[in-house]
Amino acid sequence: MESTLMAAPLDSSKIKVFTGRSNPELAQKVCDHLKVPLGRGRTELFPDGECIVKVDEDVRGRDCYIFQSTCHPTNAHLMELFIWIDCLRRASAKRVTAVIPYFGYARQDRKDEGRVPITAKLVANLLERAGADRVVSVDLHAAQVQGFFDIPVDHLNAGPVLTKWFKTLKLGNKVFVSPDVGNVKRAQAYANMMGGEICIIDKRRKNGSTTEARHIIGDVEGKNVLIVDDMITTAGTVVEACKILKANGVKDIYIAATHGVFAPPAMERLADAPFAKIAVTDTIPMSNRIDPIKDRLIVLSVAELLGEAVARIHRDESVSALFKEDQSA
Amino acid sequence: MESTLMAAPLDSSKIKVFTGRSNPELAQKVCDHLKVPLGRGRTELFPDGECIVKVDEDVRGRDCYIFQSTCHPTNAHLMELFIWIDCLRRASAKRVTAVIPYFGYARQDRKDEGRVPITAKLVANLLERAGADRVVSVDLHAAQVQGFFDIPVDHLNAGPVLTKWFKTLKLGNKVFVSPDVGNVKRAQAYANMMGGEICIIDKRRKNGSTTEARHIIGDVEGKNVLIVDDMITTAGTVVEACKILKANGVKDIYIAATHGVFAPPAMERLADAPFAKIAVTDTIPMSNRIDPIKDRLIVLSVAELLGEAVARIHRDESVSALFKEDQSA
Amino acid sequence: MESTLMAAPLDSSKIKVFTGRSNPELAQKVCDHLKVPLGRGRTELFPDGECIVKVDEDVRGRDCYIFQSTCHPTNAHLMELFIWIDCLRRASAKRVTAVIPYFGYARQDRKDEGRVPITAKLVANLLERAGADRVVSVDLHAAQVQGFFDIPVDHLNAGPVLTKWFKTLKLGNKVFVSPDVGNVKRAQAYANMMGGEICIIDKRRKNGSTTEARHIIGDVEGKNVLIVDDMITTAGTVVEACKILKANGVKDIYIAATHGVFAPPAMERLADAPFAKIAVTDTIPMSNRIDPIKDRLIVLSVAELLGEAVARIHRDESVSALFKEDQSA
Amino acid sequence: MESTLMAAPLDSSKIKVFTGRSNPELAQKVCDHLKVPLGRGRTELFPDGECIVKVDEDVRGRDCYIFQSTCHPTNAHLMELFIWIDCLRRASAKRVTAVIPYFGYARQDRKDEGRVPITAKLVANLLERAGADRVVSVDLHAAQVQGFFDIPVDHLNAGPVLTKWFKTLKLGNKVFVSPDVGNVKRAQAYANMMGGEICIIDKRRKNGSTTEARHIIGDVEGKNVLIVDDMITTAGTVVEACKILKANGVKDIYIAATHGVFAPPAMERLADAPFAKIAVTDTIPMSNRIDPIKDRLIVLSVAELLGEAVARIHRDESVSALFKEDQSA
Amino acid sequence: MESTLMAAPLDSSKIKVFTGRSNPELAQKVCDHLKVPLGRGRTELFPDGECIVKVDEDVRGRDCYIFQSTCHPTNAHLMELFIWIDCLRRASAKRVTAVIPYFGYARQDRKDEGRVPITAKLVANLLERAGADRVVSVDLHAAQVQGFFDIPVDHLNAGPVLTKWFKTLKLGNKVFVSPDVGNVKRAQAYANMMGGEICIIDKRRKNGSTTEARHIIGDVEGKNVLIVDDMITTAGTVVEACKILKANGVKDIYIAATHGVFAPPAMERLADAPFAKIAVTDTIPMSNRIDPIKDRLIVLSVAELLGEAVARIHRDESVSALFKEDQSA
Amino acid sequence: MESTLMAAPLDSSKIKVFTGRSNPELAQKVCDHLKVPLGRGRTELFPDGECIVKVDEDVRGRDCYIFQSTCHPTNAHLMELFIWIDCLRRASAKRVTAVIPYFGYARQDRKDEGRVPITAKLVANLLERAGADRVVSVDLHAAQVQGFFDIPVDHLNAGPVLTKWFKTLKLGNKVFVSPDVGNVKRAQAYANMMGGEICIIDKRRKNGSTTEARHIIGDVEGKNVLIVDDMITTAGTVVEACKILKANGVKDIYIAATHGVFAPPAMERLADAPFAKIAVTDTIPMSNRIDPIKDRLIVLSVAELLGEAVARIHRDESVSALFKEDQSA
Repeated sequence: MESTLMAAPLDSSKIKVFTGRSNPELAQKVCDHLKVPLGRGRTELFPDGECIVKVDEDVRGRDCYIFQSTCHPTNAHLMELFIWIDCLRRASAKRVTAVIPYFGYARQDRKDEGRVPITAKLVANLLERAGADRVVSVDLHAAQVQGFFDIPVDHLNAGPVLTKWFKTLKLGNKVFVSPDVGNVKRAQAYANMMGGEICIIDKRRKNGSTTEARHIIGDVEGKNVLIVDDMITTAGTVVEACKILKANGVKDIYIAATHGVFAPPAMERLADAPFAKIAVTDTIPMSNRIDPIKDRLIVLSVAELLGEAVARIHRDESVSALFKEDQSA
Repeated sequence: MESTLMAAPLDSSKIKVFTGRSNPELAQKVCDHLKVPLGRGRTELFPDGECIVKVDEDVRGRDCYIFQSTCHPTNAHLMELFIWIDCLRRASAKRVTAVIPYFGYARQDRKDEGRVPITAKLVANLLERAGADRVVSVDLHAAQVQGFFDIPVDHLNAGPVLTKWFKTLKLGNKVFVSPDVGNVKRAQAYANMMGGEICIIDKRRKNGSTTEARHIIGDVEGKNVLIVDDMITTAGTVVEACKILKANGVKDIYIAATHGVFAPPAMERLADAPFAKIAVTDTIPMSNRIDPIKDRLIVLSVAELLGEAVARIHRDESVSALFKEDQSA
Repeated sequence: MESTLMAAPLDSSKIKVFTGRSNPELAQKVCDHLKVPLGRGRTELFPDGECIVKVDEDVRGRDCYIFQSTCHPTNAHLMELFIWIDCLRRASAKRVTAVIPYFGYARQDRKDEGRVPITAKLVANLLERAGADRVVSVDLHAAQVQGFFDIPVDHLNAGPVLTKWFKTLKLGNKVFVSPDVGNVKRAQAYANMMGGEICIIDKRRKNGSTTEARHIIGDVEGKNVLIVDDMITTAGTVVEACKILKANGVKDIYIAATHGVFAPPAMERLADAPFAKIAVTDTIPMSNRIDPIKDRLIVLSVAELLGEAVARIHRDESVSALFKEDQSA
Repeated sequence: MESTLMAAPLDSSKIKVFTGRSNPELAQKVCDHLKVPLGRGRTELFPDGECIVKVDEDVRGRDCYIFQSTCHPTNAHLMELFIWIDCLRRASAKRVTAVIPYFGYARQDRKDEGRVPITAKLVANLLERAGADRVVSVDLHAAQVQGFFDIPVDHLNAGPVLTKWFKTLKLGNKVFVSPDVGNVKRAQAYANMMGGEICIIDKRRKNGSTTEARHIIGDVEGKNVLIVDDMITTAGTVVEACKILKANGVKDIYIAATHGVFAPPAMERLADAPFAKIAVTDTIPMSNRIDPIKDRLIVLSVAELLGEAVARIHRDESVSALFKEDQSA
Repeated sequence: MESTLMAAPLDSSKIKVFTGRSNPELAQKVCDHLKVPLGRGRTELFPDGECIVKVDEDVRGRDCYIFQSTCHPTNAHLMELFIWIDCLRRASAKRVTAVIPYFGYARQDRKDEGRVPITAKLVANLLERAGADRVVSVDLHAAQVQGFFDIPVDHLNAGPVLTKWFKTLKLGNKVFVSPDVGNVKRAQAYANMMGGEICIIDKRRKNGSTTEARHIIGDVEGKNVLIVDDMITTAGTVVEACKILKANGVKDIYIAATHGVFAPPAMERLADAPFAKIAVTDTIPMSNRIDPIKDRLIVLSVAELLGEAVARIHRDESVSALFKEDQSA
Repeated sequence: MESTLMAAPLDSSKIKVFTGRSNPELAQKVCDHLKVPLGRGRTELFPDGECIVKVDEDVRGRDCYIFQSTCHPTNAHLMELFIWIDCLRRASAKRVTAVIPYFGYARQDRKDEGRVPITAKLVANLLERAGADRVVSVDLHAAQVQGFFDIPVDHLNAGPVLTKWFKTLKLGNKVFVSPDVGNVKRAQAYANMMGGEICIIDKRRKNGSTTEARHIIGDVEGKNVLIVDDMITTAGTVVEACKILKANGVKDIYIAATHGVFAPPAMERLADAPFAKIAVTDTIPMSNRIDPIKDRLIVLSVAELLGEAVARIHRDESVSALFKEDQSA
């Protein structure tokens, strides 16, 4: 990712970056990177909990970006985002891009059983109906969610951010592990980029019961393990993986995921889990709830990644080119 | 409202009534009135706060009704409603009717200043996009919100429910008051239906300052006052009205509103206000937060009203006919 | 409203202003104000009454404005407007803004009874379907009509134009009257801006009959009265108000309304009514039908207001800013 | 066309036929044929010329048909039709079919030059947007207009009605003439059905001028001529054809067209034209304006044709089958 | 058509011209005329016949043109075109114009019988749904197909290209023939432009059988005949016309059509037909299948016509002006 | 899957099953199972390759199903399907369900690089635009494709059909293999259903080159291997898997996949591959191209599965219930 890209400054009278209430720190960092002020505007709450968006500077004909991670509380953050979009659209913005670093409900992307919703598609439909012209997101749970939209989506890959951290660890004898068989491809991609083997952890129903047993397929003894995933929610799967890996004699365990959701009881689980370090990005803000693991937690920033993407979108430059060099590295 | 309407029972294999989490008691009451079981299905919460809807009985080709008041927390209740609609639609329901006894965000129905949203229209658009085929609601803040929809809306009037209560008070020498000049028409309608005068409370900016003064226009001394409104939110306006009315020598004050939102600090304000009784309906569930006024609070039910409407919609009978007899009464 | 706004001239190769047949004089005045020529193009009638629009200059990639008040004959003016929009859109205009100084059918904005249309919403839908990208209008009957559109609407307030005239009258001891209880808020807004009291005229059903009686609520004796409304149609309500006000001993009566519809029998009624002056704007052209009151009629122009709005829309400048100074004045 | 089709009567509680103001006589005739009462409902005019539609019987879940020929005044009749559709749709009609015996603006079906509208497509779009579910029409000017709709269109052919009349004339030695080279196919179709030759009338620019000359291509001397067209508007073309045919020694001339638009100066032209008889249908009502030719004018009814089509649509029976027997006859 | 139009060169960083696989030669010629390189991108085929489009240069914010004649194999060429449009749209092209020199399925523009599709409208709908912003085409079979689109269509007339060739023949004593009565207007237009008479060939059902007989209406003996049509498919009609014309003693026969579809058995039929020359344009590529008539076949190019249209569209200049001078010539 | 479901016969006057040209044998088998005749209607080809659909029986108000696998030639089969849908919709079918046993282009469900289409979403959009009301498909490559649709999709699982065959093999000591790491979940699901272990085949880039090496992760020696996948296209991956498995000492290899695409050079590859049996279903018709492996190929039918689904959809019964018993088995 070339930082020289910012040689020519953006015209802050033409691009406007606003933020909802879910992750204003990240939006501010992106603005700092872009060297444009964060747009003046805010979400206000009425006593009955309804919210209203007010924009305090003119946006007519401007290229507007509204940042909102749809993390917890997801429903409130989504509605707030829809209202921002409606507000900007009715205020005659030239283009409204919803920047959604963490895209909530992305796991509800299919019907595994009868009579359930496909909420990720619903959210895509509602974003379009509210009036979004484009979407930017990072590491969607399934790449197919991009196809849920008819408007253009720039799907950013935080892999380079995580890989850069991995490399600083200077580990030898590496094995990449997917904690879930649905995600082996991700482990394989890292192994191909950085060298090393892969292994998987198989979760099997025991005969005659509903309890499950896990066992490792592949060779891990004495190796450094890097567990990679797109998100850590309740940390159940990843902590189970740590335990069985340790039981199989691995050396050190490192965990990396783009989105640190850390929903209860993630902290209780992670506090006792036998890993060395865990890295997530700032797509979701970390509050003091991460105290139990703060010594082992690394928070990497996607602000530069998002900033470069926004700059390129604004200037009609290729966003996919952002990732070219990393792939060849 | 003729209860004889229910002479012919509904076929519970053809009509399905479900409820979101905002007001299940009302949905159950409606089902009791309709003599059909409440549909099996529920909203489940994941640890990260995302919700999923699961419907446990077949709805293919059925006429489905999903009850959800979009009261506090409005955003969560709205998203839950959208997800219910998506779920029922994808499950091949013949028709999905969103029954929204209290329609949140209805006051954001216009742009009074630049660069604000029209959230009530946004909500209408999102309901249609999610897949609702019809909407039923009670006493929308502005009747024009009905026009925000392109799908048919049955806009029910809780006036007969409140009027019935008013009549039981057997008050003489009545005057109807609108606490807000935007709502005088409502007071006039009650006065026309029940006899009595109207008065208004004018709120004026004082010269050279932003503080406001209220004074009464019309004759109220020694009279019984009935303050009528569509909703009571923080109770600021209505309590101010009580005070100035008392200061002008009225006899007893009765308050009636369809929707008892009672957002903070409504209870603190009402606890000390000089009124005799206050009546609201159960479009919004009352919790223990109403304790400070529980001796003076009457909660009237719209369950029968909603039930009759649902039955008539299901049977392709006129809903407007529901209100004919009341108007002539 | 700053006329300095026009310091930088518009580029007449980029902005094109056309007019339908309803109010070409107003369109011409706006063009004069904007210092751009009225676009060459016209509506032609075939012998069977069908019309066709022909545009005689290139509009590809231009920012086009089509002026049409949808006053009498409303249906013909609406269809003509739809055809203009279709024509400009198919001719590859960059943007088509429908400028509708008087928006007909705005009063049909709700369903007050069963089985009636919501024609204002229908018109909004048809305008969007025909291909309008934006709408500009003046003093819509209900502000909610703005929400009937999903395209951006610039809703202009002719209040400053009327207020300016009011001030020239240098009246003391003023009272503002709404002829209809549905419109008290408008009278209150004027009272707040210009000083003075408000009163309302209550229209009540007499017991046991359908005839109505009017009486005044509020103190008017010996005062100068300013009756304010958004439109005068058949003048029934306003003339009744004049009579009862005079009967209650008011001094002089002045009437102001944005839209002078003056449908029969408005002129017969007004000819004999006891008011001093009546002011309307030129959103609707006055023909010789106003002869009976021409000595007491003032026609104020909204051309500058519309011209400033068009210039600001074309230049991506704030339209709401147009009204800032007036509110503080 | 089998009249036995009506053996099983329609259930008048399920089918509702309404009429706009353009051709209520035809709608009544169709109802008489269908043996159902004309639906109670009407278009009312306000003093300012706006109209409102009120439906006086319940239409929920009913199969509704609204009859409206969009003849002169076309714009008013179109808007009235859109409003009817909006009204029926919002009143929860199960299906709304617009029956448009004469489809105005059908000739504006292409762009022959730059910067003109395609009004026939616009009208199709507006009908769909207003909420029509189906359309029925008779002899569209171009069959392609059917493709302007995405909703199903039943395009009825009045040919059998005209052919039946032609046969009663018992003419020998026939030649069919298209007055316009764009319509030769229609003449050929009649010639194929009834026997006889065809000829065309060529309209050519004279060298060096814009005046035109007509001459006949084909052999007509001493023959009976049948001029066939879809509509007669100002009668210019058809009267010119009569003159040149007479000048070329034809025997008697008969004219037949589905739609008798008869816009000025049609009557002046036809009054002096040398034809024996002219037949049109009642898709457009004839008023006293046809007096000048009333002795030579035959008005045939399409009521039975439309009635059969409505009955078949209501009963999910084939409409194209209506025309099978006539083709083989 | 002024070639001076190209005085100012196009900016090849803003306009991108791509080609599908149906007619890359024509796209290349247009690029040569425009002096811009053909865009880098291609359709790749997978072994199972599915295709994928890959664009190798950035198109964000660019004005993109994708050339594809939807000639044989029409279905494959259509799907490839839809995929190109989807690809360009998702790659954030500013505008995607589908340039379709030959528009397949254009003859399926109406329902002549029950239960058939209107495929030309379907194709228009699918092009819009895929994301096309504009369409350019040449000599649509029916001009009404333009109205099947809601997006702007530039309908180019290859008439001037054919007329120019006709003039080089320097023929005297000309008669223009439409091989089909549905197309007489086209012959008349040529006759009006170039001088000469017209005649038609009538196709009649013989009494009591389904076989048809053709005869000529109009005077052709000893004349040079120019048969004009929009397309030649299987050549059945045109070859029949040649035969009957020769049998009626015409001198030389010349055939001109915009689109040379030449589907089997066109070549067998034409090889033996008594015409002097046949001219078509390169909207459809000629392969070696034209060998049997290659000595008598003239292929005229529409590259300049298309190039001028593309340049004018890109520069927001009038396309209809392209044809002005030709009409006056 | 209960065959008792068919106890009550379908009413063949209400349900109509048609077939396109891709897999008429399967459609016929489904009709046989449903005991309804295959609908009369067909796709005809014109000499230039355009196709037209003609339906020979009335479909008004009927519940219509059109069968078409979008296998090779995919583009032609897709366009044919769109045309069928357009035809049925315009013929006033009550509901049109596209039954697509094999859904082509399903692998193009994401953007893995810049400037490529998402063709699976495009196809979903085009199906909806053509007018499909529902879709039925079998084993979509990614379950998320279901979410590409806003219309209801019944996604059938051929797993029970394949499992039933697996069980007839009565194999012991089983291991399930996914030939591709993206599909391990499928192998795991089979292992959980039938007992046995899983293993994966890892494909790794060799250092310093683009060639790839495969190695097995997991224990396979001496075991019976069941390779499971959703489709076999060129058979490259599966044949490589066979080789490396054999090299690692497995006993017998069985292959099962829902869709036998068998694109070149699948047959050449499979002919020499060391597997015992390969099973596919008849979602794609097998022609004589399968000769090289016909002794080892088992073709299982999904006709009963599709038939049951169609019957349940027609009768508004649960389709997911079809799979309940299999899961518990």
